[in-house]
Amino acid sequence: MSVLPKSVENVIAQFSKLPGVGPKSAARMTYHYLRSPNGDATNLANALIDMDENICFCTKCYNVSDKEVCSLCDSLLRKNSKICVVEEPLDVVAFENSAVYEGFYFVLGGVISPAEGIGAEDLRFKQLKERCNELLKELESKRLEVIVATNPNLEGEATASYIHDMFEKYIKEGTMVVSRLAMGLPTGADLEYADRLTLKRALEGRRSI
Amino acid sequence: MSVLPKSVENVIAQFSKLPGVGPKSAARMTYHYLRSPNGDATNLANALIDMDENICFCTKCYNVSDKEVCSLCDSLLRKNSKICVVEEPLDVVAFENSAVYEGFYFVLGGVISPAEGIGAEDLRFKQLKERCNELLKELESKRLEVIVATNPNLEGEATASYIHDMFEKYIKEGTMVVSRLAMGLPTGADLEYADRLTLKRALEGRRSI
Repeated sequence: MSVLPKSVENVIAQFSKLPGVGPKSAARMTYHYLRSPNGDATNLANALIDMDENICFCTKCYNVSDKEVCSLCDSLLRKNSKICVVEEPLDVVAFENSAVYEGFYFVLGGVISPAEGIGAEDLRFKQLKERCNELLKELESKRLEVIVATNPNLEGEATASYIHDMFEKYIKEGTMVVSRLAMGLPTGADLEYADRLTLKRALEGRRSI
Repeated sequence: MSVLPKSVENVIAQFSKLPGVGPKSAARMTYHYLRSPNGDATNLANALIDMDENICFCTKCYNVSDKEVCSLCDSLLRKNSKICVVEEPLDVVAFENSAVYEGFYFVLGGVISPAEGIGAEDLRFKQLKERCNELLKELESKRLEVIVATNPNLEGEATASYIHDMFEKYIKEGTMVVSRLAMGLPTGADLEYADRLTLKRALEGRRSI
């Protein structure tokens, strides 16, 4: 016999599904709602239902959006000669929060990962090609830069190569440049603790000063 | 202008209210629901609403319950000569999962903590006294043991003292024994890393073998 009422067990089970949340954390989260004055649980419930009902994917960049075309793709202030390919919507938030980029985005929806059973057909490569063609048509310069900003790991590298190969014809034509974010030491890092690959990349990418 | 749609921001804000969940974790949790097939967010929302509607506090032990009297207080298998006073409902779960205790419980709702502005009047001392009197009436032996299982820290100790003082008359009468969980080294601990207070308590509570 379980000690907890079924409706409490249910909430714990739901929270346990979250990435990085174990049964103990899920229980603590659930008890927070049991303890807190009436309303907090209902507020979260309503926010979730509202999100489920109102959020769709932008038809241009596939970021989460509450409109058919998101505010970033719809903005006249963004440069249309650059498109930055990221894995997840949170990556767009990271770029926007640091205000270092002015072009468009494209959310791939993940990376090629044979280990997790994610192949090229599971990602938005077709849509990326369509979007790039659309941008190329609009561009006076007829020269588009695709910045691949997948994470700097094995899967991210493989996905970057795949994108490069996919656009090979355009690259040879000279209508497209596919670039990759620089790799090296992060700001504030301690050289002593840098891993081998980071050091290798930092050395390969060295610049004259 | 925020990058995220308002309904997504709302869910992040709600998750951020959880103890130990920062804005980054809240965003990751929210994106889990955005990514997962429709239904997960609604399931959590429904579970929360269901919990809010169906859960009350047991009128005997003040643990969370879906009935007026919880299954533990209602059980004929529990020994009614012992009552274990804990801070929170999760402490009851910890005891029950380890199956080391057969008496009743009482959930105090916290501990006396001047730093957090929690005084004796904010906790269920009156209800504890009532429950103990109720148990004493039922008991043939007329001898009740109150096991104080508050956490082994300053506030927990102060609360244990408060309970001891509250029942002083009963203790002198011989109708009540107030005890405290043993303190010492936890199983599997490394003496080398034990803190001073734990070592002190372990030494004070030493037993002949």
